[in-house]
Amino acid sequence: MKRIFEVNPWTVTTHELNPQDKRLQESMTSLGNEYMGMRGMFEEVYSGDTHQGIYIGGVWFPDKTRVGWWKNGYPHYFGKAINALNFVKADFYIDDQQVDLAKNDVQDFELSLDMQKGVLNRTFTVFGVKVTVTRLISVAQKELAVLHYTFESADGQAHQVRFDASIDADVVNEDSNYDEKFWQVLSAGHDGDASFIATQTVENPFGVPQFTVVARQSFVGGDNQTASQTATEVTDHFELTVPAAGEVTFEKRVVVTTSRDYADLDAVVAAGAEITQAIAAQSYDDLYTAHTQEWANRWEKADVQIEGDDAAQQGIRFNLFQLFSTYYGNDPRLNIGPKGFTGEKYGGATYWDTEAFAIPVYLGVAEPEVTRSLLQYRFDQLDGAFHNAKEQGLAGALYPMVTFDGIESHNEWEITFEEIHRNSTIAYAIYNYTNITGDRSWLTGDGAQVLYNIARFWADRVHYSERHGQYMIHGVTGPNEYENNVNNNFYTNWMAKWVLQYALENYDDIADDQKARLNVSADELEKWQDIVAKMYLPEADITLKGKDYHIFEQHDTFLDKDLTPIADMPQDIRPINQNWSWDRILRSPYIKQSDTLHAMFYFPDAFTEDEKRQNFEFYEPLTVHESSLSPSVHAILAADLEMSDKAVEMYERAARLDLDNYNNDTEDGLHITAMTGSWLAIVQGFAGMRVRDGQLHLKPFLPKKWDKYSFRLVFRGHVLEVSVDQTGANVQLISGDPLTINLSGEEVTLSKSDK
Amino acid sequence: MKRIFEVNPWTVTTHELNPQDKRLQESMTSLGNEYMGMRGMFEEVYSGDTHQGIYIGGVWFPDKTRVGWWKNGYPHYFGKAINALNFVKADFYIDDQQVDLAKNDVQDFELSLDMQKGVLNRTFTVFGVKVTVTRLISVAQKELAVLHYTFESADGQAHQVRFDASIDADVVNEDSNYDEKFWQVLSAGHDGDASFIATQTVENPFGVPQFTVVARQSFVGGDNQTASQTATEVTDHFELTVPAAGEVTFEKRVVVTTSRDYADLDAVVAAGAEITQAIAAQSYDDLYTAHTQEWANRWEKADVQIEGDDAAQQGIRFNLFQLFSTYYGNDPRLNIGPKGFTGEKYGGATYWDTEAFAIPVYLGVAEPEVTRSLLQYRFDQLDGAFHNAKEQGLAGALYPMVTFDGIESHNEWEITFEEIHRNSTIAYAIYNYTNITGDRSWLTGDGAQVLYNIARFWADRVHYSERHGQYMIHGVTGPNEYENNVNNNFYTNWMAKWVLQYALENYDDIADDQKARLNVSADELEKWQDIVAKMYLPEADITLKGKDYHIFEQHDTFLDKDLTPIADMPQDIRPINQNWSWDRILRSPYIKQSDTLHAMFYFPDAFTEDEKRQNFEFYEPLTVHESSLSPSVHAILAADLEMSDKAVEMYERAARLDLDNYNNDTEDGLHITAMTGSWLAIVQGFAGMRVRDGQLHLKPFLPKKWDKYSFRLVFRGHVLEVSVDQTGANVQLISGDPLTINLSGEEVTLSKSDK
Repeated sequence: MKRIFEVNPWTVTTHELNPQDKRLQESMTSLGNEYMGMRGMFEEVYSGDTHQGIYIGGVWFPDKTRVGWWKNGYPHYFGKAINALNFVKADFYIDDQQVDLAKNDVQDFELSLDMQKGVLNRTFTVFGVKVTVTRLISVAQKELAVLHYTFESADGQAHQVRFDASIDADVVNEDSNYDEKFWQVLSAGHDGDASFIATQTVENPFGVPQFTVVARQSFVGGDNQTASQTATEVTDHFELTVPAAGEVTFEKRVVVTTSRDYADLDAVVAAGAEITQAIAAQSYDDLYTAHTQEWANRWEKADVQIEGDDAAQQGIRFNLFQLFSTYYGNDPRLNIGPKGFTGEKYGGATYWDTEAFAIPVYLGVAEPEVTRSLLQYRFDQLDGAFHNAKEQGLAGALYPMVTFDGIESHNEWEITFEEIHRNSTIAYAIYNYTNITGDRSWLTGDGAQVLYNIARFWADRVHYSERHGQYMIHGVTGPNEYENNVNNNFYTNWMAKWVLQYALENYDDIADDQKARLNVSADELEKWQDIVAKMYLPEADITLKGKDYHIFEQHDTFLDKDLTPIADMPQDIRPINQNWSWDRILRSPYIKQSDTLHAMFYFPDAFTEDEKRQNFEFYEPLTVHESSLSPSVHAILAADLEMSDKAVEMYERAARLDLDNYNNDTEDGLHITAMTGSWLAIVQGFAGMRVRDGQLHLKPFLPKKWDKYSFRLVFRGHVLEVSVDQTGANVQLISGDPLTINLSGEEVTLSKSDK
Repeated sequence: MKRIFEVNPWTVTTHELNPQDKRLQESMTSLGNEYMGMRGMFEEVYSGDTHQGIYIGGVWFPDKTRVGWWKNGYPHYFGKAINALNFVKADFYIDDQQVDLAKNDVQDFELSLDMQKGVLNRTFTVFGVKVTVTRLISVAQKELAVLHYTFESADGQAHQVRFDASIDADVVNEDSNYDEKFWQVLSAGHDGDASFIATQTVENPFGVPQFTVVARQSFVGGDNQTASQTATEVTDHFELTVPAAGEVTFEKRVVVTTSRDYADLDAVVAAGAEITQAIAAQSYDDLYTAHTQEWANRWEKADVQIEGDDAAQQGIRFNLFQLFSTYYGNDPRLNIGPKGFTGEKYGGATYWDTEAFAIPVYLGVAEPEVTRSLLQYRFDQLDGAFHNAKEQGLAGALYPMVTFDGIESHNEWEITFEEIHRNSTIAYAIYNYTNITGDRSWLTGDGAQVLYNIARFWADRVHYSERHGQYMIHGVTGPNEYENNVNNNFYTNWMAKWVLQYALENYDDIADDQKARLNVSADELEKWQDIVAKMYLPEADITLKGKDYHIFEQHDTFLDKDLTPIADMPQDIRPINQNWSWDRILRSPYIKQSDTLHAMFYFPDAFTEDEKRQNFEFYEPLTVHESSLSPSVHAILAADLEMSDKAVEMYERAARLDLDNYNNDTEDGLHITAMTGSWLAIVQGFAGMRVRDGQLHLKPFLPKKWDKYSFRLVFRGHVLEVSVDQTGANVQLISGDPLTINLSGEEVTLSKSDK
């Protein structure tokens, strides 16, 4: 755990340059607008340790798989959202002295991410000049990034500033498998007052399309502009005079266009030029206001307010800010990478995190279209899911663990081939959308292709055990990735059974054209029914530390392990993934993230309170929460079981995971998909939000430490505001027709006049 | 299956150039003398597909591990016996036309490996000249390789031959992880009539010593010698005149010396020069005779004769020939790589194959010193085994799956961390040596350090299952590598228990100095006793295809699988490792090689006949024998159970695995360690050889197809000859004092006069 930024409700600010934690600082000050994003590295040269990272949504490269020993069915490549051209580069010199904060004598340093406005501010004084840089990646004009500089004399003297503003295409990925470069330059040049460079991903042998990315920089302010270029970089040179009193400003605007939106290189280049020209008429204030207004709109719908605990307040806002920076549902071809635009790890690809954690949040904070866009993404990738199942010799659709285009691109057999529970979560998202929005059109329309082909996969993946007379699923990795290749993982079996049951229950409602396309036979339906009736779900009695439990068994032989609770072990073994060999972790009882409990998180009403309590009390003491996705699930379940202290402990860990660097890995990038967890913990946990038979239920409680919390919730055409303080819960209807909800067990009808 | 060589009792011959199977041909015509060895590639340029491979025993390089996702405890490098300088290179031109059999019009081609003499002969006619090349790697002078050429006019015309004889250090490994080169040239030159080049493995970051290898070529015959060199190659040029009638000969001799035997570069170079000078006085006939005489000595002790089945005869000789070419116990620093000097796969490193399969053969065909040398190898690597156990956080010694220096260098967690049954086989080899030779001095001496530290490993690796009140071993891969990460693998648990029991039984006999060094506490001995008493060994009743079995369960949940026998599956799925995805293989019941049955192979007298029969009849129909090590074990067990047809079927597969390319992978190299299997199948299988309480037991039968078989056996200072034909078995004492053996249940006293 390490906290390098100050606690403040709306900003993430530091007054330390902090060279030893530069990468951590850069992760935390990332910006993005779904279309593109970047880490918070400085614009000018920084000769200390730094990790440059600029990423364009949906621009990726298939990096040839690296394994020791090939296994049949392995993906041939690992897809990566690759580091793109560095378009914020801007070296500058004050009185011919190069600004490089790793070397200079720097005073009054401040770096501050303004979450309300969506901008990154940096101020420092060097060589007698106070420099202020504001960076924004516009959420009003997706292709636009703006750097705004203000220079002011700090010593009463005038100074000369020389600026070399560049776009640099000579970038690498730190995690490339074979140290190869992913980019080639197609063309570059200078026209009018702007320079551009056009780059393309290099060829690949896997049939993945090559992407073209063009960046064009234009400027406001500065004198004596000249241009230069090398094979991989274009630069515009300027001079500025900082007066002895007063300030001078300088602005670099960058427009990034790609072949994802335009047909060919000429069109990509032309589009960039047009947008550059269109915004030339707008002042910095215009651009800034359009951007900050859109952020204000987002906060209006989604802000969560916590009184009495600024750290908790900062945590939830930081999480929503970074989540929205990564994805806001504007482009159905995009999804949510576990690290968003903030680092290279996990390759920026799509994981099951989206359906498990992000969709439940977007369903509460944004219009249903955002979620539809995410569902559409999976529908559009159905062919890839067919391919994945076929690679394993199985029927139906297997959604991938990691992907850009639907085709699996992870490269460990215990994940790729075995962590197949992910498939059920894709079906769960359809259920979740349908249950919360009440809109059945996706389920009975295109969504049916997704759901029923997942059902087909499960029906082929189970096998019948003669000696037990039951269907089993062998050889899986459950959500707990600290075990591998286990048999009859409760969660996997339960969810597979649920998928088949849900498919059967809704079959009559499916649209005829969808049914025709699916062509599900009567034999198939009968087989599904038989599997539902005879699915093996391990459960057992177990005595642990003198206490008896009846629980669902995580998998067939889990209870044969040495079940010493983690609290009874030496504390210096944690995190076990950094201190123990892999085999020791695998045969230990320690659970990375919710596994059996995960089914109860998805379907809290499908289990009795006693089931939930016994399983929680048994498994939680064995859980090390070394997945960033773990604490929030436990917060919600603890809240459900009215274990409020445990719920708050877990919330705090979820909410400030990156701000406090709990897992000691935030320097690699933020845990974007895990950021959903703090919202879920508050709304589904503390406020007990459920949707039952189309009715919204809330059962709020106030954490002891807090004075008050409030949040807004989008529900079926209504916007509600829920406030909870020591006097109790207050729900107000902000917009929409009157609505009857269930508040702490009472039916309450809300109308706008209640406000 | 593919047979490209003719069946002949003493040679492996083809009259086909066979460009499409060139690599397979090269594997099969490999030569070696333990010190070094090579594939059968041509000396002169061959522009078609070919795989050059020359390897020096014990010269290896730590190639940086390549994995997708790092796991704690992974080895940092994969050790590889790397392709060394090409010292047989000899391009030549006839009347200025380059000889390149891929392009020339070639007549009367013959390639013939003479197993009796240990030489490779090649004859062909091209450009009007009949060329004969004989290659030998001397077993009389380990550093020496000789190429002998004879040229004879085939068209009654005289011809000019120009020779460029080289040593080429510009070699690569096809399997290098990062396409890097492993060699650098230290020096090169020409002195007297000889040229040399000195190479060294490049630096590595793992502290593995760099090896220096010097090769020096000298010549007999040829005119107008000149020399030339490049940065990576030395070449001597010659001219020869082939007369219109009669023949002309030319000889290239190569002496290879290394830093394994000499202190520094100068010494390595000087030693090569000295040996070159020493042999200069010897004629080709001298060198040839010294070499072939030593091969005759080997065959005198070890030859197995089979009458009535030339294919079987060729098979066993080919296997013994290649096994002896790889290892003959001259250097205790060396061991037996699965592919010997015949290919790159498995990196030429040491595997458990040595103790499981090779030692039982050497115990029968060579003096006990050969086996002692292999035992010594493991003792010398004890520090590495301590290191490996420590990496897993465990006590004692864990012998590696793959190694050169004792440190594990494999890179898949399911092998490295989990296939730990290997450790018991190291202990078994001590038992086997002690039981067969009667020499207890290794067990009670240095061997105790090996045995008791393996026992310590097991005592730490088991865990106590509270709910069963028994010790268990979770998270292992058994000998059947078509399953991974299973719990309570019967073989692993049984062997671990055996190790602890064997250690306890012999503890009183261990030499005091060894005991002092071991420092085994009374608590440890008590714990070992408790584990022996309470080790969980899964067994169960199971009905399969209407038949009831009571069997040892391969692991906890094996019997829950779909147990369809492989014979009932479509045949086009085999080999499953080439047709099925890895996950499908893992959850299938199909067994790569003996697993539960392996314990019965090691300890045939520890199980009742009923146990052996029920387990064999249950498991063999599920076994796909896709490990080259599988058929021989099943041959021996089938013979034990008097299932003679099954035994012969399995023998044939073992004996001609490479000659008939059963597994379709011999182009990568020969299955050297599996070659032991045919000898074991004959001696332990057909002849029923056992050693019980110090007495040799034989219980021979004659396979129906054969007229007769006979073999020699080294046993406790005696050499016996066992002959079996339709009249019965005849055992003669060839050397040594009179000996009482048990022959088919009868006590028989043999003395030399019996002959």
